[in-house]
Amino acid sequence: MPLTRFSVSLDDALPHRFDTRIHGDRCPTRSKAVADLIRASLVQMEWSEGDEVAGAIVLVYDHHRRNVVKKIMDAQHVCHTAIISTQHVHPDHDNCIEIVAVRGKPSEIAAVARRLRAIKGLKHVSVAAGTTGRMLS
Amino acid sequence: MPLTRFSVSLDDALPHRFDTRIHGDRCPTRSKAVADLIRASLVQMEWSEGDEVAGAIVLVYDHHRRNVVKKIMDAQHVCHTAIISTQHVHPDHDNCIEIVAVRGKPSEIAAVARRLRAIKGLKHVSVAAGTTGRMLS
Amino acid sequence: MPLTRFSVSLDDALPHRFDTRIHGDRCPTRSKAVADLIRASLVQMEWSEGDEVAGAIVLVYDHHRRNVVKKIMDAQHVCHTAIISTQHVHPDHDNCIEIVAVRGKPSEIAAVARRLRAIKGLKHVSVAAGTTGRMLS
Amino acid sequence: MPLTRFSVSLDDALPHRFDTRIHGDRCPTRSKAVADLIRASLVQMEWSEGDEVAGAIVLVYDHHRRNVVKKIMDAQHVCHTAIISTQHVHPDHDNCIEIVAVRGKPSEIAAVARRLRAIKGLKHVSVAAGTTGRMLS
Repeated sequence: MPLTRFSVSLDDALPHRFDTRIHGDRCPTRSKAVADLIRASLVQMEWSEGDEVAGAIVLVYDHHRRNVVKKIMDAQHVCHTAIISTQHVHPDHDNCIEIVAVRGKPSEIAAVARRLRAIKGLKHVSVAAGTTGRMLS
Repeated sequence: MPLTRFSVSLDDALPHRFDTRIHGDRCPTRSKAVADLIRASLVQMEWSEGDEVAGAIVLVYDHHRRNVVKKIMDAQHVCHTAIISTQHVHPDHDNCIEIVAVRGKPSEIAAVARRLRAIKGLKHVSVAAGTTGRMLS
Repeated sequence: MPLTRFSVSLDDALPHRFDTRIHGDRCPTRSKAVADLIRASLVQMEWSEGDEVAGAIVLVYDHHRRNVVKKIMDAQHVCHTAIISTQHVHPDHDNCIEIVAVRGKPSEIAAVARRLRAIKGLKHVSVAAGTTGRMLS
Repeated sequence: MPLTRFSVSLDDALPHRFDTRIHGDRCPTRSKAVADLIRASLVQMEWSEGDEVAGAIVLVYDHHRRNVVKKIMDAQHVCHTAIISTQHVHPDHDNCIEIVAVRGKPSEIAAVARRLRAIKGLKHVSVAAGTTGRMLS
C-alpha cells in the first residue's frame, strides 16, 4: 500500500515521553504509534457520527433461566441484519458467555445491545467498539 | 434461584424518571433494571480490582500485510492461558475482524490487548469488558 | 422532600456483594446506593439525548505561549452562553489549569471543548459530565 | 520552547481522513493534532499509573438537605491535601453545583470522589481527568 510521509514538530520533552510509552508497549515504530492514535480517534468518531461500525457484544447469562436461550435467539433473529455470527463459551456450570459479532450503524448496534439487555435472565452486556477497517485503509 | 427482597426509598421524582427510562429500554421490571445497574457497577469494580474477568478483544487488520496473520497467531499462543477461542469475520476483500474471547486477571487481558496492538499491520484493537458471571449469581 | 418506597427482588448473592461494595464506599444506606446508580444512569442518558447538562471543562496550558491567554478569553466570550464562570490554578511556573463551569445542550458543551482544544498552546482538555440536578429532584 | 521534528509514514488514505477531522475541529496544524493525541494518551496513562494528576470533581446537591453543606465542607477538609480550591454555581432554587479543583495521586483523587459521593444529599459526582501539565512540557 502506498505510504504518505509527513513531518511533525513537538515540544522537546514530548517525543521522549512518547518514546518511553512506545517502548513499554513494544510498539515497533513511532509511525505505527502515531497511526494507531490517529486510527483510534477516527474509530471513536465513527461511533458518534459514522455510517457503519463493527464490533462485539458480549452477553453473560445463566442458561438455567427459563426461556432465556430462546429469547436471546429470538432477539438476535429480529436484529439479524446487524448480527454477523456468534461465539459461545461456557465459563462454568451455570453461566454462558456469548459473543455476538455485529456490524451496522452505531444506533443499530446500540439498539441490539439494548434489546438483548432487556431479556430477563441476561446478567451483563458489554460492547467492544471496533471498526470494519474500511475507512482506515 | 432464591431471591432476596429489600425495599428502597427514593426522592419522589426519581422513580418516575427511572420508569420512563425502563419503559424506553423495554426492561420488564424495576427489579431487573436495578439489578442490571448493580451488576454493571460490580463488573466495573471487577475490572479495576478483581481477580478474574472475561470479555472480548476485537482486532481489525489487513490480511495482505506481510506476516500479520502469523504474528497474530504467535502472539495468541504466547497469551494462550488468557485466550479461550476466536471468531473470524471478513468485512471486505482486505480487512479481517477477529474476535478473541478472553478470560483472566484484568492485567492479563490488558497485556494481551497491548501485545496484539503492537503488531505491525494491526489497525485497531477494542475491548468489551464483560464478566464470567460467577460473582453475579 | 416526599419519598417513594418500592421493593426490589434480587438473586440471592447479589445483595451481599452489593453490601460489601456499599460498605467499602462508606455509603450510608442501600437506598442511597441504589439512588446513586439510578441518578448516574439518568445523567449518562442526559448527555446522550438530553436538553441541558452541566459540568466542568478543565484546560491545561502554558501561559508563556504567545497569545494563548487572549485566545482562550476570546473563545470563551464566543461561547459565553454555555459558560458560567471559571476558576484558575497555577500548578507551577509555566502551567495553568483553568476550570470552566459550563451549562447547556450536550452538543454546545462539546462545541466549547472542541473550540478550546483547537487553540495553539492548549495542552489538554478534559470534561466532567455532570448535571444541573433539575431532573434528579 | 525547543521543538523536535520527526517524520511519520502513514497508509495513504489515513492522512486524508485525519485532515478532514482536523479541519472539522478547526485544529490549526497536523503537528498540533498529533501532539494533542500524544498528550491525551500520556494523560490517560498518568491516571492509571502516574504519580500526580490534576482535574476537577463536580458535585451536585440540594442545599436544603439537612447538614449536606456542612458535611461537604468537613469532607473537603479531611481531604485538604488533594483539594486546591472550589467554585460554586447556583443552577436553580434548590440545586448547587460545586466544582472542586484537585491535584494528587490518582488513588487520592478517587478517594476524595468516593468520600464526597457517600454524603447523604449528594446527587451526583463526576470527574474531569486532567493533568498538571508538568509531564507535557
